[in-house]
Amino acid sequence: MKILLSGGAGFIGSHLAEELLAAGHQVVCADDLSLGSLKNIAGLKGRRGFEFLKLDLRDFKKLDALFRKHRFACVFHLAANSDIQAGELDMERDLGRTFMTTFNLLRCMARAGVKQIVFASTSAVYGELKGDLAEDSGPLFPISYYGAGKLASEAYITAFCRQCGAQAWIIRFPNVIGPRATHGVILDFVRKLRKDPSRLQVLGNGRQCKPYLYVDDLVHAILTVWRKAKGEVNCYNVAGKGRTKVAGIAAETVRGSGLSGVKVMFGKTDRGWKGDVPQFGYSMKKISRLGWRAALSSDAAVKKAVKRIWEQEGRP
Amino acid sequence: MKILLSGGAGFIGSHLAEELLAAGHQVVCADDLSLGSLKNIAGLKGRRGFEFLKLDLRDFKKLDALFRKHRFACVFHLAANSDIQAGELDMERDLGRTFMTTFNLLRCMARAGVKQIVFASTSAVYGELKGDLAEDSGPLFPISYYGAGKLASEAYITAFCRQCGAQAWIIRFPNVIGPRATHGVILDFVRKLRKDPSRLQVLGNGRQCKPYLYVDDLVHAILTVWRKAKGEVNCYNVAGKGRTKVAGIAAETVRGSGLSGVKVMFGKTDRGWKGDVPQFGYSMKKISRLGWRAALSSDAAVKKAVKRIWEQEGRP
Repeated sequence: MKILLSGGAGFIGSHLAEELLAAGHQVVCADDLSLGSLKNIAGLKGRRGFEFLKLDLRDFKKLDALFRKHRFACVFHLAANSDIQAGELDMERDLGRTFMTTFNLLRCMARAGVKQIVFASTSAVYGELKGDLAEDSGPLFPISYYGAGKLASEAYITAFCRQCGAQAWIIRFPNVIGPRATHGVILDFVRKLRKDPSRLQVLGNGRQCKPYLYVDDLVHAILTVWRKAKGEVNCYNVAGKGRTKVAGIAAETVRGSGLSGVKVMFGKTDRGWKGDVPQFGYSMKKISRLGWRAALSSDAAVKKAVKRIWEQEGRP
Repeated sequence: MKILLSGGAGFIGSHLAEELLAAGHQVVCADDLSLGSLKNIAGLKGRRGFEFLKLDLRDFKKLDALFRKHRFACVFHLAANSDIQAGELDMERDLGRTFMTTFNLLRCMARAGVKQIVFASTSAVYGELKGDLAEDSGPLFPISYYGAGKLASEAYITAFCRQCGAQAWIIRFPNVIGPRATHGVILDFVRKLRKDPSRLQVLGNGRQCKPYLYVDDLVHAILTVWRKAKGEVNCYNVAGKGRTKVAGIAAETVRGSGLSGVKVMFGKTDRGWKGDVPQFGYSMKKISRLGWRAALSSDAAVKKAVKRIWEQEGRP
């Protein structure tokens, strides 16, 4: 089938593009290259069924023209601001790049009669809810504009489904890690150590503890949910087993660096930034009923990602 | 305290303006008069502490100028598209009038350091959840763009609270009825009977059954929640006791008309329009802990509103 993949040159999008092509789909990858990069999709260039278009999805007219040119059967919407901290400094960042890209896509889909959307949502929609978060947990009070932009997108997607007779697969990602990441805790640590191999400053007290998911597992989960879930709105949490402490990630990153004598320094606050959710657990009951489970636990994902990101960035 | 009341010339806003003034607050009422009307606030004109400004809140520059002119202590945000059916025909209607008005207000509040927002939310955020809806019920999958615009607004409000150290009172209204209503089932019936006193066509099969709340009770509930709830995000359902069937409202409206021999005709669908939620119940446990309860049950509210709206519109 012909698929529009927004954010397809990004960290997760480029991995997903490979799998969609491998499954025999035609993929039109749209990306404004603000966080994505042509390097990420260099291996796909010229491949049969693959097309790339530099496009800012906030530009409704251009997006609408794209929907007139192609007859898409499905949209995978991964384009977003994924830099939570940057969004705290500029309220319009998540509004434009996360929410308005979704709204514009839905408007185009309504006009063109496209009936399937797969949406990259986030654990951040849950805000600071306690306990193992399940898909029907509430209330949903996000604390970052990132989480707000994603929840606002979800809301419009579910209304769109009913209004236009469409189907949605909303997948709530936790921290996703692996090669091609553009930010996140591991990349942050690696870059800091490359700048100053003598010490590593951790944002927050290091006791933040969350599930981490390796990007390959995530891509597999997205495709499983899309293929197997048959409802109008299909909303699924996805994560690996267990959780990992930020202090443990710091230790693993130092170990992976080959450096010795690194002084790891912790902050005093319980979180790295205002909108950081320091602790959460994720219920996997719903997605496990589809027969999916992650190949890597949270700890194993961190270990593998640390190794790959050091290879990607270069050891100091 | 000095309050910005958006949508203050509207159905609910104009009733709220009176109570805020009666409580000794200064009220700057901003309304674009698209649904609101100067007639609604004619009694407040010239009153000490009251000021009216015709303003479309989608115009960020003008709104920002208003925040520079006044030092608001609190914003009551009631401006919105309240016509759910109109929003189904034009996705941008709720986006602009409901969501973007909220976003612009929050941006201005962040710049001006205003730390309190009271928000008119809706039962529509719950979509078609079953059972007695409580504030922490989930998942939140709205089925109308109206519900989506309100949930999107809630999401940005909760993130704003955390990011800016502010407080929010989010009050989820059911169907609110009473004089000055601009639409809704009773007004719809009254207007139909004025056009054709021989028959009344009901949208849907008439078995839709929901809680109705009289506007005076709502205003009292809003002020109670704002005064008594002390959290960062204070989210409350509000409704009267019980629920009322649409068929019962039709019968009451016919009775109130003084007409005889009216043929009431029902549709075949379970709902009046796509985004209509045909049945829901509302948990009042949380707001009752603040000592609030409605003076009128849902049935009594319907009875009183029918009488008042016939007086307002004129019997045929």
